Amino acid sequence: MTSLEVGTMANSSVGVDRVRENGTRFIELLPATNDEHGGVIVDMKEAVESADFATLLRASMSQWRLQGKKGVWIKLPIELVNLVEPAVKEGFRYHHAEPHYLMLVYWIPETTSTIPANATHRVRVGAVVLNDKKEVLVVQENAGRFKGTGVWKIPTGVVDEGEDIFKTAIREVKEETGIDTEFLEILAFRQSHKSFFDKSDLFFLCMLHPQSFDIQRQELEIEAAQWMPFEEYAAQPFNQQHGLFKFVTDICLAKLHRNYTGFTPRPIKSFFSNQSSYLYLNGQDMVDP
Amino acid sequence: MTSLEVGTMANSSVGVDRVRENGTRFIELLPATNDEHGGVIVDMKEAVESADFATLLRASMSQWRLQGKKGVWIKLPIELVNLVEPAVKEGFRYHHAEPHYLMLVYWIPETTSTIPANATHRVRVGAVVLNDKKEVLVVQENAGRFKGTGVWKIPTGVVDEGEDIFKTAIREVKEETGIDTEFLEILAFRQSHKSFFDKSDLFFLCMLHPQSFDIQRQELEIEAAQWMPFEEYAAQPFNQQHGLFKFVTDICLAKLHRNYTGFTPRPIKSFFSNQSSYLYLNGQDMVDP
Repeated sequence: MTSLEVGTMANSSVGVDRVRENGTRFIELLPATNDEHGGVIVDMKEAVESADFATLLRASMSQWRLQGKKGVWIKLPIELVNLVEPAVKEGFRYHHAEPHYLMLVYWIPETTSTIPANATHRVRVGAVVLNDKKEVLVVQENAGRFKGTGVWKIPTGVVDEGEDIFKTAIREVKEETGIDTEFLEILAFRQSHKSFFDKSDLFFLCMLHPQSFDIQRQELEIEAAQWMPFEEYAAQPFNQQHGLFKFVTDICLAKLHRNYTGFTPRPIKSFFSNQSSYLYLNGQDMVDP
Repeated sequence: MTSLEVGTMANSSVGVDRVRENGTRFIELLPATNDEHGGVIVDMKEAVESADFATLLRASMSQWRLQGKKGVWIKLPIELVNLVEPAVKEGFRYHHAEPHYLMLVYWIPETTSTIPANATHRVRVGAVVLNDKKEVLVVQENAGRFKGTGVWKIPTGVVDEGEDIFKTAIREVKEETGIDTEFLEILAFRQSHKSFFDKSDLFFLCMLHPQSFDIQRQELEIEAAQWMPFEEYAAQPFNQQHGLFKFVTDICLAKLHRNYTGFTPRPIKSFFSNQSSYLYLNGQDMVDP
C-alpha cells in the first residue's frame, strides 16, 4: 500500500499522480493561495496542456472540498485561453474579464454564494474650470458625438482603474488643455443606465479653480480650447435645450451668483484594511469632527 | 468563372465556401448587427464546431475590413466556451464577462481605439432611516464582517445592474426590515479602491424617512433589527473610533441639529437617447430651472 501525499504543482513538469523513487505516490495540485474569505485563488501563469490542466483541476477541487474551501477563483491570462474550456467544463462560471485576463469562479458550499458582484458602473467626470474673470475653460473635440458640431464643452474623461474622482478631473483638464487646477467641489452627479451594453454610468460634475492661464491643447483629441465668458458658454443653444447641459449651466449660475454648495473630498481610513480613501460631503454644512 | 456572393450564416448547417445548385459560390458569414459607432456585434447563440467558427470568423473579418468596420464585438454565452480560443487566436481580446457570457472585441482600424472602458466600480448604499422620535433603524447581520460582533449597523446593500441608487436604498431597507420609506437625500459618498481584485467601490450614504413602523426582519440575512435612539447608535464604540462610521454619525448629527444638506435626485432626459436618468444635486441651494 503506497502512502498518499499532496503538494502543489512544480513550475517545471506537469503530472498528476506520480510515484516517487521511494515508491510513495504524490498528487500534484494547482498552485493556489488562500483568500481572506475561506476561498482559494489560482493565478495561472505557466502554459499547461488543456487535458493536464483538467486533471489537475479535478484533483485540486477534491482537495479543496475536503478542506471546506468556499469560493475557488481561477485567473487565466489571455495567453492561456486553452484553459478556459476545461475550467468551464468543471463547472466554473465567468466572474469578470479585462483585456488580458479572464477570472472564473466556483462556489463549493451548499450555502448561498457570497461571491462579490461584478463591477456595474463606469465613472466619468466633467470639469468646470472657472477663472477669476468668470471665464470657463472649454474645448472642441476631434472625435465622438460632439465632433464637428461647433459645440464648446467642458473637458470630460473616464476615471481610470484605481483613480480618485477628484484626481481624474485635475488630470483630464491638464491633459486636454495644459491648465493646472485646484479641485474645489463635486457640484452634482448623474447616474444613467445601459450606457454600454448592460453597464451603467456615473458622471460627476466637478468644479476646479485654475492655477495657470496659458492653454496648451492636446492636439490628438482636442480641436480647439479657449477661455470663454461664462454667459457665452451658457448661451449656446445646446446648453439651453437639453436636460443635463441645462442643469450644468444652472448649477454653475447658482454657484456664481448664489451660495450653491457641493461635496468636497475628505481623506479617511478604512477600518478593515487601514487603506486610505476619500469621503465626499457637504463641507460647508459640516463642522470638522 | 463563378460569381461570388456574401450572406449571413443560416441557423441550420455550417459551411463556409459553398456552391449553389446553379454553380454560384456562396460565402457564409457570422450573423452580425451594426452598432451605432461603425462597428458590428456578433451575438452567437447556436452551437458551432470550433474549426468551423474559426473559418467563418476569418471570412467575416475580411468582409468587415473591406467594409471599413471599426470595432467587432463577439458575445459568447458560456455554453459556447469552445469558441473562446478560436476568437482569441484571431486576435480578439476580452472586454468584459458576466457569469453567463464573455464579450470579446477586436479593433480593426489603424487609428486609436475608441472602445469604451470596462466597468470599474461596484456601487453600494447605506441607509440612515430616522423616525420622528429620532430613532434610527438598525440591524445585526447573519454573515459578513459584522457577524457576531454585536454591532448595530444601518442597512446596506449593492446596487443591482440597471438600478437607480435611491431605489436601491428603498429596496434594501424594505428587504432587510420590512419598513417602507421615502428617499430624502444622499448625505455623502465614499470612493475606495481595490475593493475586490482591482475594482473600486462607491458607497452612497442615504437618508430616508420611514412610512411604516413595524419591523419584519429578513430571517436569512438579518439576525436582529430594531429602532434605536440615535444617541445610543452613535455611542457604540465602533462608531466612535473609525473613519467612515464616525463620519456617518457626525453627518447625521449635522443633519439632526444643524442644517446639513445633501444631494436629492431630479429626473432628467438624455440628449442623445432621450432616456430618463437622475441627476443628484443640492436642491436647497438650487432654484428650479
